[in-house]
Amino acid sequence: MKGLCVFSGQAHPSLATAICDNLGIDLSPTKFDRFSNDCLYVQLLESCREQDVFIIQPIVPPAQENLMELLLMMDAARGASARRVTAVMPHYAYARSDKKDAPRISITGRLVADMLSTAGANRVLTLTLHSEQVHGFFSVPVDHLNAGKVLAAHFMTKDLSNAVVVSPDLGNAKEASRFARMLKLNVALGRKQRISDDKVIIDTVVGDVKGRDCIVMDDEIATGSSILELLDRLRELGARRFYLACTHGLLTKNAVRKLTGAEDVIELVTTDSVPLVEEKKTPKLVQLPIAPLFADAISRIHKGESVSSLFQ
Amino acid sequence: MKGLCVFSGQAHPSLATAICDNLGIDLSPTKFDRFSNDCLYVQLLESCREQDVFIIQPIVPPAQENLMELLLMMDAARGASARRVTAVMPHYAYARSDKKDAPRISITGRLVADMLSTAGANRVLTLTLHSEQVHGFFSVPVDHLNAGKVLAAHFMTKDLSNAVVVSPDLGNAKEASRFARMLKLNVALGRKQRISDDKVIIDTVVGDVKGRDCIVMDDEIATGSSILELLDRLRELGARRFYLACTHGLLTKNAVRKLTGAEDVIELVTTDSVPLVEEKKTPKLVQLPIAPLFADAISRIHKGESVSSLFQ
Amino acid sequence: MKGLCVFSGQAHPSLATAICDNLGIDLSPTKFDRFSNDCLYVQLLESCREQDVFIIQPIVPPAQENLMELLLMMDAARGASARRVTAVMPHYAYARSDKKDAPRISITGRLVADMLSTAGANRVLTLTLHSEQVHGFFSVPVDHLNAGKVLAAHFMTKDLSNAVVVSPDLGNAKEASRFARMLKLNVALGRKQRISDDKVIIDTVVGDVKGRDCIVMDDEIATGSSILELLDRLRELGARRFYLACTHGLLTKNAVRKLTGAEDVIELVTTDSVPLVEEKKTPKLVQLPIAPLFADAISRIHKGESVSSLFQ
Amino acid sequence: MKGLCVFSGQAHPSLATAICDNLGIDLSPTKFDRFSNDCLYVQLLESCREQDVFIIQPIVPPAQENLMELLLMMDAARGASARRVTAVMPHYAYARSDKKDAPRISITGRLVADMLSTAGANRVLTLTLHSEQVHGFFSVPVDHLNAGKVLAAHFMTKDLSNAVVVSPDLGNAKEASRFARMLKLNVALGRKQRISDDKVIIDTVVGDVKGRDCIVMDDEIATGSSILELLDRLRELGARRFYLACTHGLLTKNAVRKLTGAEDVIELVTTDSVPLVEEKKTPKLVQLPIAPLFADAISRIHKGESVSSLFQ
Amino acid sequence: MKGLCVFSGQAHPSLATAICDNLGIDLSPTKFDRFSNDCLYVQLLESCREQDVFIIQPIVPPAQENLMELLLMMDAARGASARRVTAVMPHYAYARSDKKDAPRISITGRLVADMLSTAGANRVLTLTLHSEQVHGFFSVPVDHLNAGKVLAAHFMTKDLSNAVVVSPDLGNAKEASRFARMLKLNVALGRKQRISDDKVIIDTVVGDVKGRDCIVMDDEIATGSSILELLDRLRELGARRFYLACTHGLLTKNAVRKLTGAEDVIELVTTDSVPLVEEKKTPKLVQLPIAPLFADAISRIHKGESVSSLFQ
Amino acid sequence: MKGLCVFSGQAHPSLATAICDNLGIDLSPTKFDRFSNDCLYVQLLESCREQDVFIIQPIVPPAQENLMELLLMMDAARGASARRVTAVMPHYAYARSDKKDAPRISITGRLVADMLSTAGANRVLTLTLHSEQVHGFFSVPVDHLNAGKVLAAHFMTKDLSNAVVVSPDLGNAKEASRFARMLKLNVALGRKQRISDDKVIIDTVVGDVKGRDCIVMDDEIATGSSILELLDRLRELGARRFYLACTHGLLTKNAVRKLTGAEDVIELVTTDSVPLVEEKKTPKLVQLPIAPLFADAISRIHKGESVSSLFQ
Repeated sequence: MKGLCVFSGQAHPSLATAICDNLGIDLSPTKFDRFSNDCLYVQLLESCREQDVFIIQPIVPPAQENLMELLLMMDAARGASARRVTAVMPHYAYARSDKKDAPRISITGRLVADMLSTAGANRVLTLTLHSEQVHGFFSVPVDHLNAGKVLAAHFMTKDLSNAVVVSPDLGNAKEASRFARMLKLNVALGRKQRISDDKVIIDTVVGDVKGRDCIVMDDEIATGSSILELLDRLRELGARRFYLACTHGLLTKNAVRKLTGAEDVIELVTTDSVPLVEEKKTPKLVQLPIAPLFADAISRIHKGESVSSLFQ
Repeated sequence: MKGLCVFSGQAHPSLATAICDNLGIDLSPTKFDRFSNDCLYVQLLESCREQDVFIIQPIVPPAQENLMELLLMMDAARGASARRVTAVMPHYAYARSDKKDAPRISITGRLVADMLSTAGANRVLTLTLHSEQVHGFFSVPVDHLNAGKVLAAHFMTKDLSNAVVVSPDLGNAKEASRFARMLKLNVALGRKQRISDDKVIIDTVVGDVKGRDCIVMDDEIATGSSILELLDRLRELGARRFYLACTHGLLTKNAVRKLTGAEDVIELVTTDSVPLVEEKKTPKLVQLPIAPLFADAISRIHKGESVSSLFQ
Repeated sequence: MKGLCVFSGQAHPSLATAICDNLGIDLSPTKFDRFSNDCLYVQLLESCREQDVFIIQPIVPPAQENLMELLLMMDAARGASARRVTAVMPHYAYARSDKKDAPRISITGRLVADMLSTAGANRVLTLTLHSEQVHGFFSVPVDHLNAGKVLAAHFMTKDLSNAVVVSPDLGNAKEASRFARMLKLNVALGRKQRISDDKVIIDTVVGDVKGRDCIVMDDEIATGSSILELLDRLRELGARRFYLACTHGLLTKNAVRKLTGAEDVIELVTTDSVPLVEEKKTPKLVQLPIAPLFADAISRIHKGESVSSLFQ
Repeated sequence: MKGLCVFSGQAHPSLATAICDNLGIDLSPTKFDRFSNDCLYVQLLESCREQDVFIIQPIVPPAQENLMELLLMMDAARGASARRVTAVMPHYAYARSDKKDAPRISITGRLVADMLSTAGANRVLTLTLHSEQVHGFFSVPVDHLNAGKVLAAHFMTKDLSNAVVVSPDLGNAKEASRFARMLKLNVALGRKQRISDDKVIIDTVVGDVKGRDCIVMDDEIATGSSILELLDRLRELGARRFYLACTHGLLTKNAVRKLTGAEDVIELVTTDSVPLVEEKKTPKLVQLPIAPLFADAISRIHKGESVSSLFQ
Repeated sequence: MKGLCVFSGQAHPSLATAICDNLGIDLSPTKFDRFSNDCLYVQLLESCREQDVFIIQPIVPPAQENLMELLLMMDAARGASARRVTAVMPHYAYARSDKKDAPRISITGRLVADMLSTAGANRVLTLTLHSEQVHGFFSVPVDHLNAGKVLAAHFMTKDLSNAVVVSPDLGNAKEASRFARMLKLNVALGRKQRISDDKVIIDTVVGDVKGRDCIVMDDEIATGSSILELLDRLRELGARRFYLACTHGLLTKNAVRKLTGAEDVIELVTTDSVPLVEEKKTPKLVQLPIAPLFADAISRIHKGESVSSLFQ
Repeated sequence: MKGLCVFSGQAHPSLATAICDNLGIDLSPTKFDRFSNDCLYVQLLESCREQDVFIIQPIVPPAQENLMELLLMMDAARGASARRVTAVMPHYAYARSDKKDAPRISITGRLVADMLSTAGANRVLTLTLHSEQVHGFFSVPVDHLNAGKVLAAHFMTKDLSNAVVVSPDLGNAKEASRFARMLKLNVALGRKQRISDDKVIIDTVVGDVKGRDCIVMDDEIATGSSILELLDRLRELGARRFYLACTHGLLTKNAVRKLTGAEDVIELVTTDSVPLVEEKKTPKLVQLPIAPLFADAISRIHKGESVSSLFQ
């Protein structure tokens, strides 16, 4: 594809390679280094003058390192006269900081959006933001992909006659409901309550789950502790079996083991927007490849074709 | 209060006067005119050089006229060397345009936030935004007041032993749940579904409402048609009586009459963030005054005192 | 014309259609709606990714609605990855607010220019601004068309042996003189004086009009009251007959009837930069089509050809 | 006056000193130098941390040197943590470049306004801009003083029973008319026509001047050649005697001698906004001091008092 | 000190405390947290409305974490209506990325300066930037302190009769020479040459060092490998003893032990701009306290007193 | 070359012509004028709509005139819808103002960089900035050419067996060392000391020069007084013969004569980045043409080819 140039930071090189494979091009090489005072150094190793540059970097742990690396790469591309620089963030972790629910905090989802512009991003391509409003934090055009179809396609192959979609959080209710509608299912909702500084419980489940197969659906699962808490509650209410699903499977620490340990948990389904070390992968973990969706979007953006068809 | 200067647009002068009464100052006068080509003309009639200027203007119908008037007033204040200009918007209607749920639309909540900055707003003071994330659309500091306490105080005087809070929309679930917790009540949730371009139904109510007194809570009620739809559903499910509550009572057309017509609707409670013509006021309509809250906030902002205590 | 995309707001769709006819393309469709809280909703119904987008919207009554609609359309086009967005304003009404002739007012011509940039305008295409300096209010490139040639061509077909061009306002003197020179005529000038807040008289006419056919020339005629006042003065000074001409015929209320009622008024000539309802059209009213000029300009801008030849 | 700090560039130090005298403070010293490569060097020699800094510099010949010097001084004040920086330009020469009357030229009045902001100007204080619209070129607040009252006060001491105000240019018609009204006189207007690239003639005078004393009024007189051309025309039309008046007396080359050489020219009246070398001063030249007006404005701006009273 | 508010990030709390002790105020508390997806969370625990806020955070390892934390704190302070936010960076590590000495790299010293502005920094207070030009990377006022006097005062107590100042790098020649002049000593200069990607040698020493006590002076010492390389070269040239000095003692890994291991190395002198774990402190390591200098600067900035005296 | 358009200011038209000759295109014509109030007027005489516009203008004496002319030309090109505007500055004189070495001065190298952006520069192409860090002053992409290879190629034809490169200033040490390495020579360094306000001496030369042929290398030579001072010092130290070399030969006043007057000065070598009047040219003066390097860079930038190869 003429004039297209894809670079990758160090956050998720295998995804970047998969995207390039789908595009039928080579990933452009980059040199990464670190000064002895811990400052990052990045050099793009291919001319990007007048190129349509895409830089693939999900903001995953180590989040600060990966974010900063992305900023340096964009600045380098701009300074090297790229025609256009698109920040491709399969996971935009700072989207969770999207409101001011305590005094004197930063709405970091907006701050980082501004920093991306400062560093030279002309566009953003991302996947399933924590809330849809975060789209409005960016001053540059955003193509906001949704993994819903990818996840739904997976579940449609199963017997859902007895299933219900459960959201662990009221804040995610609308999104869960939309997913339920794709599967023609009902929805139930957990209600979180903060007990103390580091303890959250789910005190209520609104909706009927008795005897049902629950597809527990969230946008991001990290330690999985809310999900575990929800499972306990659902079991108390007589739920039968569980499918766990999310777009962004951070699955930090021993989350996979904890979540899939119980027998009534059938599957933990996620996309590969976040890299996962081999040893975390277990038979119950299903990683759906997201590279085809990103490759399609990048190709359309580069060629100036409509992307909106990808969203419907 | 030295150095403080409060102006009002034409959207809601009685609220502005009430705020000034609470502050113990006079509202500064403004001249409004319209050129024969329909362009607006505004002249601030009091020197605002080096003053701390607050301009009170909810974005209510006619929304475009009122927004534009606010922009002109801020631009005039800036050009007249105001030390600081705060846009006081008791209702920020464009907050509803907070996401891109269809291709090629404007996230107008962000666009208008940017326009306010362009016109000279140094700060924003507002009340119960449609979603909390809209706070992050502004590049200037925002003091985001919440009418929850005002509404809750009203309901706490009633017998709530049999009550439940009902949100007409999953998107408002978290906010409704927070309100329910203030009243120590459970929550139920309606799920909207769009049938055709101009027809929305509520196809499901998640949670238990049978035999209950329902406090139907929304951030804004305009024509009230979703609420009416919800009431039908709740009646089918055996709900007993209804209190209708919202922060922003737009109550356009004959909404008040339609909403309070039925006997099982006890009250329609709202703040006076939006002006209401006399003829719409009926015995079942309760308007809670919001001026004390705004006066308190303006006083603290002007004196540099903490505003966060107002939010807790 | 490849890569070109023309949308129209609701201000003047027939002009937009005429421009597209001249360009030999179809007008791209748009969906307009209004929320129940009076906020506008606009959806562009054709992909504008990487397109050269022109949005046609004169700022005519209802001026605030039309301006806001234009801003939303531009924001939508930018967010939808248009390659370039041009605001086409055949009439830019706010150009009249071009100076600070009273304390604490807004120079709204500049404010709106900044708002257009905020909303995503990369360029502006407009016609006969109230003063030439308004061009300098914009931070983006402006192509400023002039209807002088169109109007002059109309008058050149007449017997002008006894004619003089009369400007109703000294502020328009230079422009009237330029028009007079195109017709090889002399110029006379009315001098306005403000008697009270809502009363303007023309106290003097500088220059010789006795026994002459007067071509009264202004940039914009709205209610026509200054023109009527001028005609009285000219009649007192022995002028013979009158042609009334302007670029922007707002002709609000019953202006057409009032202006063309007298027998000594031969014609009222204007372009169709402003829409006019059918019932206002009378035999003495001549509307010169401006679409060919705009189509020519858009075509040249899109193809990167010089536009300056259109101005000479 | 506490916290006030006035610096002067090298354009017009005697005016700066006069302003400081009127304010009762000392002018703060500055060191000026020039590198051997012709680059300017400026050092402010008094701490301006948290000060309200005014920098006095009319943009007079050598215009580029003086403009650049002003920019450096503002940048130095900003970098030295001034609380506020006001550019005081008794003459803003680039205001003449206020429109695009030929293709591919710069509207330099706007460009320089932007440059002033770039260099750190928080406000502008200026006198009689070439056109009122130039006010709108600035994105920072402008206090736009007018020398009309100063000039009118001078003429009111004379016998004006037979006088008329004459503008040499239609573009200045409104301003001349306003001046005439202050003196309760009629107005006449010259019409300039460009014959060739470097030859302008005044082909018509609109209005009656026969037997009259003419007060020829312009905003700026440089070489005076248009005025000389106008005098010839007025003499042909039977005018009696001439007073020449302007706000900004640039009076380059031998303009004073040429303009005041004829016996029927009684006086050449100007303010001292522009410095004039001693040898140009002749008995017929009257320079009205402008320092009191600027000192009054600076004092009010510094103290936060209304400046609008100075304009009426 | 009224209206002054000092916060500290987690990079160097003991320095922040020492600065506050010198100022005679308490450090304002902050809550630090980290979401399970590795995103940072910061809450300022004291009202900073209308306060003059200073946030102390050297950019030391972990550099990305510390930088990001600083950005969040500034954004929080701005959003909480601080009157002014000053980023206090005793060490600005990214200053080393100050030029483009390879294609397609970022001049990160400039990028981070822009990010600080984006996040809300109104001013910067820093110490001994890697090069003086980095001052010009910032668009906000910078107070650039220099530790030269502090270091020189230390050496002036010693017998320097036989000493010479040696810079390990030609790029630091001017700074070393300035330091030498403060001690009335001569200067010698090492010349670095890059042998391979990770190997730098010092191939030449320009200037006389035979039999001399060498004060090796650099702005920052991290691993110390260049210094070790220089010592070898100086020993070959007959130098006698060594004092090692730098402003920013990063002293990563086992740098202290390596540098002070040899007997001819008398002292390693640095300021405490960078935190150092206890176990790295050895008898030969001298840490000069920098808090008094910062406290003095903060006090002057807050009170609006001249800071320039601190630089001479 | 399609779509390419090269204009020249008045600073160095012969260089512009040479560059165009190398590119095989015609220089686009420009009209320059000056109003009687000394304001500049510039009109580009060729359509630059959608063109890739390069404007060639070194900032040489008269520096302020030339800088301002460049700004006007860029503003005109932007306003005339150029697709991209590149400021080509073969000499960027204000780069010398790159640090704040005294209180209350402007870092003018940064200020002018910002002014270039304000006026519409999308890119900058320049040659051998006074310090490499100045690159970071620009917010737009900069292609920073280096004349080192051009100068080195000249010296490589000579017998350098006995030569040493001498820098007159420690601040230039690194650059001189890099040049020395290209010629495989050693380096020596003069150390400047400021004696009084207008007297600089070179008090030390670090490194060995006895009996050597010295290639004295600086980035810019203006009056040449430091060089003369250095020659005296080198002669005292027994240096044999001198070649003087610099990128930017400003050679003001009688610098050429003074520098080449002595017999032991063999040559004064410079590029033609700065125009030189004929009468200054002497047999010992060698001007190396820089046009091929600029033409190559412009061609690559225009075609989107890598420029980095020009730097190695």
